[in-house]
This record gives sequence, C-alpha cells and structure tokens, in this order.
Amino acid sequence: MHALTPKMTAEDVNIFLGRAFPQLNNDSSDYLATDVFPGGCTVRLNAGDRHLRPGNTVSGPSLFTLADIGGYVCVLTHAGPDALSVTTNLNINFMRRAEAGPIDGHCRILKLGKSLMVFDIAMTAGDGGPVVAQATGTYSIPPRKP
Amino acid sequence: MHALTPKMTAEDVNIFLGRAFPQLNNDSSDYLATDVFPGGCTVRLNAGDRHLRPGNTVSGPSLFTLADIGGYVCVLTHAGPDALSVTTNLNINFMRRAEAGPIDGHCRILKLGKSLMVFDIAMTAGDGGPVVAQATGTYSIPPRKP
Amino acid sequence: MHALTPKMTAEDVNIFLGRAFPQLNNDSSDYLATDVFPGGCTVRLNAGDRHLRPGNTVSGPSLFTLADIGGYVCVLTHAGPDALSVTTNLNINFMRRAEAGPIDGHCRILKLGKSLMVFDIAMTAGDGGPVVAQATGTYSIPPRKP
Amino acid sequence: MHALTPKMTAEDVNIFLGRAFPQLNNDSSDYLATDVFPGGCTVRLNAGDRHLRPGNTVSGPSLFTLADIGGYVCVLTHAGPDALSVTTNLNINFMRRAEAGPIDGHCRILKLGKSLMVFDIAMTAGDGGPVVAQATGTYSIPPRKP
Repeated sequence: MHALTPKMTAEDVNIFLGRAFPQLNNDSSDYLATDVFPGGCTVRLNAGDRHLRPGNTVSGPSLFTLADIGGYVCVLTHAGPDALSVTTNLNINFMRRAEAGPIDGHCRILKLGKSLMVFDIAMTAGDGGPVVAQATGTYSIPPRKP
Repeated sequence: MHALTPKMTAEDVNIFLGRAFPQLNNDSSDYLATDVFPGGCTVRLNAGDRHLRPGNTVSGPSLFTLADIGGYVCVLTHAGPDALSVTTNLNINFMRRAEAGPIDGHCRILKLGKSLMVFDIAMTAGDGGPVVAQATGTYSIPPRKP
Repeated sequence: MHALTPKMTAEDVNIFLGRAFPQLNNDSSDYLATDVFPGGCTVRLNAGDRHLRPGNTVSGPSLFTLADIGGYVCVLTHAGPDALSVTTNLNINFMRRAEAGPIDGHCRILKLGKSLMVFDIAMTAGDGGPVVAQATGTYSIPPRKP
Repeated sequence: MHALTPKMTAEDVNIFLGRAFPQLNNDSSDYLATDVFPGGCTVRLNAGDRHLRPGNTVSGPSLFTLADIGGYVCVLTHAGPDALSVTTNLNINFMRRAEAGPIDGHCRILKLGKSLMVFDIAMTAGDGGPVVAQATGTYSIPPRKP
C-alpha cells in the first residue's frame, strides 16, 4: 500500500462534524473522533440511554452509525474534506451485547483508490474490552472537479 | 420452503413495537409495519427532518434501521412474539439518494430455521419508486424454554 | 430505474465465455447462461462430482462462482462486452444443502451506474426448488476509453 | 474473549484436509494451513495456472475458497475435528490484482460461540505484501451429540 497521510487531526474532524452534521450529536458528544493516524482512525460512541434497546443493550443502528462514521473519518482525513463521499456498502457482524458507556471503533483503510475506499472497523466495549461488533464497508469518492 | 404462516397482523406488530421499543418512534410513527403476509412483510419509514443528512438525503443509519426492523417484524410474526431474537449480520447496499417522505421496505424470509432466520429487503422511495437500498441479514433465534 | 436493455443473448454470452474463460468449463458446460432479459439474467450450474463436498453437497466455492458469473453476465450484456469489469464485493448466504444436478441463479440488476453495477441473485435447486443460496454483489465498471 | 486454545497443529490440519477433501488439492498442495495459533490461523494458496483469470489475475472464486478454508481451519482447530460445521455467510472485498504465487490468508476468530463462529481474514500477496482481498464470515457449529 502506498503511503497514507492524514490531512486533518481528530480535533479538526470533530469541529468539521459539528458543523456538517449538527444533528449527529445534538449538542452532546455522543460520536467523536479520538485519534487519526496514517491509514486509519479511532472513533468513539459514548453510549447513553438514547442508544439502548430493551435489556440495556447498545442498539444495532447505534453501532452501525459508529462504523459508518469510522469510514467517513477515514475518507475525510485521507482523501480530503471537500470530498462528497457516500457509503455504498456496509457489512456488519454483531457478536456480543454492549452496555452503556464508551464503545471504541478501531478503523483502518484497506484500500484508498481514486473512486473507492474500503475499510474495516472493530468495535470494542471500553478500553481493551472484547469486540462487540465488526464491520467492513466501501465509500464512493466522487471525481474532483478540475 | 415449507409453509410460512404469520401469527400476527401489521396492527398487532405496531402495538407490540410501541410497547417494546418506545424510543424507536418517540410518539410519532416514523417506523411502522404496513403489511404482514406469509413469508414476509412490508415496513415503512416516514422520513422527516431527523432522518436527513446534509443535502436532504435520508441517512444511511435510518435506512439500516428500516432494514433491521423489517427483519425483526419477519421474526416476530413468523417465529412468535416471545422470541428474544437478535441481528447477527446485516449487509446493506446504498444505491440512490432518497428524499424526505415514505420509504417502503419489501421484506421476505429466505430461510426460517430453528436457530437462524435469513431475510432480504428492498427499500423503495414511495410507491413503486426505484430501489434506494437493499439489504440481507440474519437473525439468531434463541432456543425456546421448555 | 431507467430502461435497461441487454445487448447480447444467452447464446452470445456462452460463446463469449467459452472464448474468454476457457478454464471455467473445461470443454463441458458446467456454468452457462440460460436467459438474458432487460435488467437481469438466469445462469445455471450443472453440478457434478467436481462441485461436491463430502456429504454430496454442492460446495460453497461452486455456488460463489455461480453468483459471480451471474453478475458478470449482467455487466457483459447490459454494459457491453468490452468492459473490463471486476467484482469488488460479494456477500453470500448459504441456506440449504444442494445435491448434484442443475442449480439456477436468478440474477437482477439493482443499479447500473457509470462506474458500479449492483446485483443480487437467488440460487434455486432445480426448477422452482427452494433457495439454496442468495448473494448480493458489486462490479466495478472501468471508464470507457474515448 | 475467553481463552482460545487450538487442539490441532497446521500439520494435523493438512493431513485431515487431504483425507476429508481430497478434491481440494488433487494431489498437489494448492491450499494448505501454514500456522495455527490461539484465536486464529494462517492458510496459503499457491496460486498457479488453474487459479488464474485472463490477465493472469488470481480469480475471485480462488480467493473465496482461501477465505472459506481459513474459517474452516479456525473451526476445525478450535471447536474440534468432529464438528460438521458449514459456512452460513461470507462477505468478501476484492481490492487489488494478485498474480500467480503464494497468497497468505491471515485469519482470526472474532467470536467462538456454542452455535456460531465469526472470523475475518486478510489475504496478502506474498510475505508482507499488500492486502489483495479481505473477508468476514460465519460458520454454523452443529450441536454435539451426547
């Protein structure tokens, strides 16, 4: 894989997300980037009441959203903030119940091409906890306007 | 495939969802079942402001939620309301932008086994509109207590 | 979806496959197209000894190959025979055991864009038999040379 | 994740595969296990002429087979050789062309439950080469007979 160099920090990303997707967090910090590094990033869901299903389990859609954001932060930081990228495919496996609290998404770029980025993400409950869900996805990167 | 007979109507399902997942709709009817038939169901997302991304496009997580609910309604109506089923895998392809308004999810059971149900769902914008997203998923059905 | 018009018949496809992929069938007709229609196609695997696993079940890789060929025939017939298309993603669910004999793959195009085609395929054992496997996939269509 | 302890070595696995799946390799060693460790394994495809597509690229079905074998070796070594396990789902992304030669599949168990095992596998061209394909899959583990 050729060298992957991020063009934004986690702090830059959180400011960008707050402007571009204000409804994502509703003035809280439910979803945020905690690290950006060459070839990947770490994102976090601070799972609270509104992300839980009966039984106090973090819901599937909340974990899907975390996976999708992980991919988006990878595209944003590695392909540039002007990219109007969209998810074209996402495959997710749910493996264990997760309770309220932080869920960390460890995301890496598997391929960054001209028109597609492929990534995977392992979501763990807390620091070093077991993998609760794993996803693989593809973002379509639109052609740059000359 | 052996005969598949639903044990609940769409109306039964909506009453059940309102009790079991009150946070899903927040006193509105964003997500609901509109039809249940042997081997499948139709579910609907009435996409409003809170389901949109910048550009007024229905968000990926909102369509994922619709797909997940379609599978859940299939399990609920065909395997029984006491089943504590959970999604184990969901693969979704996003194909076209969808604007605010009704999105219909046409869901069918591909396999109903003792411990797994496999389904697919085609999501169309409005009545007879193009397919905006398609998903395939698996629900794990826990063993019945004797 | 805008009108989809195939540019080749099933017979054209089989002649093309025999030339382009001689190793696929080794002078037999294990994999072939049986129908091409607007927006989709039907492909067949005549499953014999070399496609079986212990227990006389058609192997996963043989069904994967049928799914992949179904998508390829869709691209070939609808986007043109000069397209150097490649599979970028394929998700397959295996649902029932299949024995030796014909397996029909009912394949439809979910989206035909400029750079991507998305399809799904339901594979049935014999004519009108149960679905033994279902797959969804994406082909990348390279830009045409001017 | 609770401790995962393999019950067979790579050598044991290759002897087992040769007996149980003689048609896999046809007296050659196209597909083999090269390492088994707690929580995962490494498998190899020695890609030769019969695994190539036009353009001298390793075919999708050959890489799918490698992914499927990686999962099977994980089940076999960690859940026991008497398990009649079958693949229920496999999602694969193809990212780069691979030429003839060894392809290594780095496979790890994401979850080993009573009835399901989830795994992922990154396939690299040669030692330390780029990832040519990545897959995630589920094996169903049948209940043990008492």
